[in-house]
Amino acid sequence: MQSIEGHLPSQSPLHAILAPSGIAVVGASSDPTKRGYKAMVGLIKGGYGGAIYPVNPKATSILGVNTFASISDVPGTPALALICTPAATVPDLIAECGRLGIKGAVVLASGFGETGEAGAALEARMMANARAHGVRIIGPNTSGLFNLHHRVNLLALDNLKTGDIGIVSQSGNMLLSLALEAQHNGQVGFSTYIGPGNQADIGFNDYLRYLGEDEHTRVATLYVEGFRDGRKFLEVAREVAAMKPVVVYKSGATEQGQKAASSHTGALAGSYQMTVDLLRQVGVSVVQYSDEILPVAEGLSRLQKAAGKRVAVIADGGGQATIAADRLAEAGLSLATLSGHTQARLEALLLPQASSVNPVDVAGSSDAQPSLLAQCMAVVAEDDNVDSIFLVGMFGGYSLRFDESLLEDEMRGADAMLALAHATSKPLVIYSLYAPVKPPPLRCLHEAGLPVYASIEHAVRVLVALGERGDYLARHASQQSAAPTPPSASGSALLANARAEGRDLLEFEAKALLAEHAIRVPDERLVTHLQALSEVAADFADRPLAMKVVSRDILHKSDAGGVKLNLVGDAALRDAYLTIVANAREYAPNAMIDGVLVTPMADKGVEVIVGMLRDPVFGPVLMFGLGGVFVEVLDDVAFRALPISRADAESMVNQIKAQKMLEGVRGAQAVSKPALVELLMQVSQLVDAYPSIRELDLNPVIAYPDHHPSGYAIVDARIIVERDQ
Amino acid sequence: MQSIEGHLPSQSPLHAILAPSGIAVVGASSDPTKRGYKAMVGLIKGGYGGAIYPVNPKATSILGVNTFASISDVPGTPALALICTPAATVPDLIAECGRLGIKGAVVLASGFGETGEAGAALEARMMANARAHGVRIIGPNTSGLFNLHHRVNLLALDNLKTGDIGIVSQSGNMLLSLALEAQHNGQVGFSTYIGPGNQADIGFNDYLRYLGEDEHTRVATLYVEGFRDGRKFLEVAREVAAMKPVVVYKSGATEQGQKAASSHTGALAGSYQMTVDLLRQVGVSVVQYSDEILPVAEGLSRLQKAAGKRVAVIADGGGQATIAADRLAEAGLSLATLSGHTQARLEALLLPQASSVNPVDVAGSSDAQPSLLAQCMAVVAEDDNVDSIFLVGMFGGYSLRFDESLLEDEMRGADAMLALAHATSKPLVIYSLYAPVKPPPLRCLHEAGLPVYASIEHAVRVLVALGERGDYLARHASQQSAAPTPPSASGSALLANARAEGRDLLEFEAKALLAEHAIRVPDERLVTHLQALSEVAADFADRPLAMKVVSRDILHKSDAGGVKLNLVGDAALRDAYLTIVANAREYAPNAMIDGVLVTPMADKGVEVIVGMLRDPVFGPVLMFGLGGVFVEVLDDVAFRALPISRADAESMVNQIKAQKMLEGVRGAQAVSKPALVELLMQVSQLVDAYPSIRELDLNPVIAYPDHHPSGYAIVDARIIVERDQ
Repeated sequence: MQSIEGHLPSQSPLHAILAPSGIAVVGASSDPTKRGYKAMVGLIKGGYGGAIYPVNPKATSILGVNTFASISDVPGTPALALICTPAATVPDLIAECGRLGIKGAVVLASGFGETGEAGAALEARMMANARAHGVRIIGPNTSGLFNLHHRVNLLALDNLKTGDIGIVSQSGNMLLSLALEAQHNGQVGFSTYIGPGNQADIGFNDYLRYLGEDEHTRVATLYVEGFRDGRKFLEVAREVAAMKPVVVYKSGATEQGQKAASSHTGALAGSYQMTVDLLRQVGVSVVQYSDEILPVAEGLSRLQKAAGKRVAVIADGGGQATIAADRLAEAGLSLATLSGHTQARLEALLLPQASSVNPVDVAGSSDAQPSLLAQCMAVVAEDDNVDSIFLVGMFGGYSLRFDESLLEDEMRGADAMLALAHATSKPLVIYSLYAPVKPPPLRCLHEAGLPVYASIEHAVRVLVALGERGDYLARHASQQSAAPTPPSASGSALLANARAEGRDLLEFEAKALLAEHAIRVPDERLVTHLQALSEVAADFADRPLAMKVVSRDILHKSDAGGVKLNLVGDAALRDAYLTIVANAREYAPNAMIDGVLVTPMADKGVEVIVGMLRDPVFGPVLMFGLGGVFVEVLDDVAFRALPISRADAESMVNQIKAQKMLEGVRGAQAVSKPALVELLMQVSQLVDAYPSIRELDLNPVIAYPDHHPSGYAIVDARIIVERDQ
Repeated sequence: MQSIEGHLPSQSPLHAILAPSGIAVVGASSDPTKRGYKAMVGLIKGGYGGAIYPVNPKATSILGVNTFASISDVPGTPALALICTPAATVPDLIAECGRLGIKGAVVLASGFGETGEAGAALEARMMANARAHGVRIIGPNTSGLFNLHHRVNLLALDNLKTGDIGIVSQSGNMLLSLALEAQHNGQVGFSTYIGPGNQADIGFNDYLRYLGEDEHTRVATLYVEGFRDGRKFLEVAREVAAMKPVVVYKSGATEQGQKAASSHTGALAGSYQMTVDLLRQVGVSVVQYSDEILPVAEGLSRLQKAAGKRVAVIADGGGQATIAADRLAEAGLSLATLSGHTQARLEALLLPQASSVNPVDVAGSSDAQPSLLAQCMAVVAEDDNVDSIFLVGMFGGYSLRFDESLLEDEMRGADAMLALAHATSKPLVIYSLYAPVKPPPLRCLHEAGLPVYASIEHAVRVLVALGERGDYLARHASQQSAAPTPPSASGSALLANARAEGRDLLEFEAKALLAEHAIRVPDERLVTHLQALSEVAADFADRPLAMKVVSRDILHKSDAGGVKLNLVGDAALRDAYLTIVANAREYAPNAMIDGVLVTPMADKGVEVIVGMLRDPVFGPVLMFGLGGVFVEVLDDVAFRALPISRADAESMVNQIKAQKMLEGVRGAQAVSKPALVELLMQVSQLVDAYPSIRELDLNPVIAYPDHHPSGYAIVDARIIVERDQ
């Protein structure tokens, strides 16, 4: 089983607010439909140990607690004010809190920034008072919070189990859904929940940092509709993920979903695919379906991470073994190839009709002795070819299905599995079709910390997350980003010049800048008059040439008739030159034509794209993808926030779904991945060195096999320059 | 809500076996670990109304029922013998049953064909006796069966609810898993279950037909590891699916899973993707994940089918609304565009902060009046732009979350939803985060026949299945397959000739055969000597030409250097001709060279593939896909069993995932889908007319836009001819 990985040293102001010595409930109420009543119930029923000060000028006592007419009447200084009164009252109340020395306030009311201009003004007024008086604010428009380890429960949710899953959710209903699911399965417990609301003061990133610092939280679980400062989020998530798992469900996975999301939050939402890539880059476990959030969070909180993707399946029925094999393969995991020794050991345990080949099917061997399954798990756990162990079938239900007398042996089996979980560094993931029934052996397992899943599909998601976590910690967490390189004088001059002229780099300038930073660019010459052509052609000997117009005013060279390919011989070159210039003049009569670029045709290979953009949410982002129809039809691209590490670059190249294209299709040789990785690293450094590069687009880059002299050819390069405001 | 669609007229011999007037339990036992005990318990506890005759020479009474020493001692003639004794005893027992006039036997024992040669011999002996004496057999090696409407329960599963979902499962554990899931959610009831076991006599297709005939079964649900006679299965499934929904989970979705499956069953497994396509073609609802089987079956048994893909979402929280929108989009469903009238009606019902744009978010409007949600559902149900209604959120839990006093209004809301379900022809799919808790309003809904789902993901799978069912019944069920065309004399002669020579059709012969059946083939000439070349070239005027070697001995023309493209001018043609012939002679010195095919270069367009193969399981199957890298890297292809209907052909073309390629990418025009549909229909007819065509491969076919004179160009055609044994 998992040892606690760690948490960050405490810095967040939230500790004082979330574990307050006393709470003033402003707007406490005896009306059961009011949140000021719910909060009182939650605190009292939850067993909050500090002092509760209900503030209500019209009552003398609420739920048996004496009230105070105003917050100023509260004796001493509670650490936290829970404000349940309407929006209009809030700014003055915050000022009053501040004057009384109350350092934190939770503001439930809606009617602030989310409703329009008047609300935004109110929110600004509230914040001015908060800053003036040093009050930190959760909300407004928050669904509330709880901190079960300190028995603070402002939501009055019943039946919450205290545990180690911390949650920040931009949807109150989502928290409710997770709480009901946890209540129903009876296994999962929570540490802290916070609804960030409008994030007028304390923001999403602060909450994540708090969960990273909180010693009671093993897994930080986030439901996100949109990021505001995505760059900062990545930074905090990277820091937290190095210490403990961070699980994120990002809604708005599709355009349709994004539209739905943006009508409900004001936050900007980047493309889903980019967001997922960037989150994974910093070690976040991204969950794709909402019903997988809790199983994955639970698995990460309880189970060992996996060192690799090789899963050993132990099953007591062929049907489920096959389903497990299907789901594992779909998820990119593999069935471990068991060693001969392991197979022999299994065969010694099992009946002749059993299969000792993974997925291992005990085929009736365990019918009279269910604990045999634990023995099989122990055997495969010792196999070096196995990274994780997946028990699939009816364990826990033998005594129900066959005979009550089997219960004793089944309990022994559960004990053996627990012992194995403590002894091995490999995760044991258990699916049982009896999980919903919770028979004693399964209760025993999960009470001792081994989750039992009721769905093969969910169990496989957990295996994936454990593998990704293992991979992240082993390969990525400690990796350094590409070392910064200084800008060159001539590169800076190129960019400054273009910027001064309010234009982007010309193609040959872009390539010159790449070359300054040791990125290989094709040999090419700018020809500005017909006479120079034959000399240039002679330089390139007999190779077929390509010619392209160079003009700051022509963005789409092909559309302008400004590109000619496969040119051989002086006559063809002259013709092409004249045609290109004429076409360009016709296409854009006022265009300034800087010349024609002449270069040998690139060898054939696989078209890829390398690009950089500055995302409004996440900052500079590098893109790598297959070119041609693949990028246009299939969006087969990978994103990483810049700067990248070498492991990032490698994972970008390996993330391409149509890997066959890179590995060689139709008899083609595999392209050199190291060359592409090097190029990505160099582009990362380049972009880092010149903040005035707004966008970069190397498209296409032709990738070549290992033995090719140049590794790749950058056929076209565009660099968009930041404009002065 | 759904009306019962219908069932087939009774023919299956299973009715007598599954609703027997009396049952002899051979090998009945008092030992609780024996299946002969379980079966007795199941029958007695299940309340079986007919006579039970335990047969056991060593006991006098089992569970209070008097035993008989042998089956011959049983008075009268029970309709069914349940045989619980070991394999070796079975053949003689079957003969004895036959002599006594017992018409059906369920054989539980394993140790038959599945174990090897000796077992197969035993199985053959059993079957010989069964045929000789007219006994029909379920099994052997069956996990058992139940027929809850007749209180026959040989599995002794507790807590099974009698209902209308019929199951055939090749995995006993899968049945157990579904039964436990149903028990846990408390909603779903079953009619009949049968474990087909080795299918020595009655086979999978018979069981499916029985479920089609069974008046108590609304949905036939099948767990399949492998099909034996897939062609027959498709036929029966088509017949049943026209009457009632058929749900199939096919295991072995991946290569890894298929390997796992084939180690457990002897049945052949075709490619998963092909299997899914063929099942959908005949109206089967294919379920991809095992945990979706029951939700989808339940939805199809209870809810209206949907007339289209436009879903109206009514939500009481932004978070879940966004998740729903994401999942709908991923599943290929769309958010209905609500009419202005509908939006105005919603706005009249809702608070100002609500969103009347789909997904409709009531944003607190229902907090004090949950029945408002039912009103919103009724409003959108009347919108012609809406095909199905999806309620998302916390309905059913308002009284728990907010205040008990809301229960009354919530029950009113549930009643209103039920009334709406009866009044509208559109399905109401309900997700509630309170589903696991089963509060009274939700209990009321599902007791009255409206399922409530606990997972947005599962609810969306149900919406998909309802839409597919509606589409199938509206577009496919009544469609005729392409009318058979007679073979032509010359076509038959071509094939007979090739067959006699033990070879496949030459390319020009294949194209001639296509042309016989009015399939457009490019203008082309077979040139057999250099002298003929200039005349042929003159016929094609100035168009650039392609030349290809024609040889019965050269399969891969390009590999042999036997293809030259873009030839212009007499000199180039002569060079190419000589080079091709020389290359071919070098590549295959003994090859018989029939000449060189000369044809104008095809215009550029989108490469597609049309193919036909005879699958060992499913018979003749047509394939359509994108050509080039798409088929090799992405397997972007569609399959249909032959012959196809026009709707089949249309759905094949529309199934291609990279639709953008067909619809025009990078400024290209869309290709003519009608031309491709016509080609697919013609190929279906052609293949049907000539059973000696074993495989056909039109690859590539270049597809053109609507206005293009020829619609498409079949650049290469291969027809593989059936060999004589």
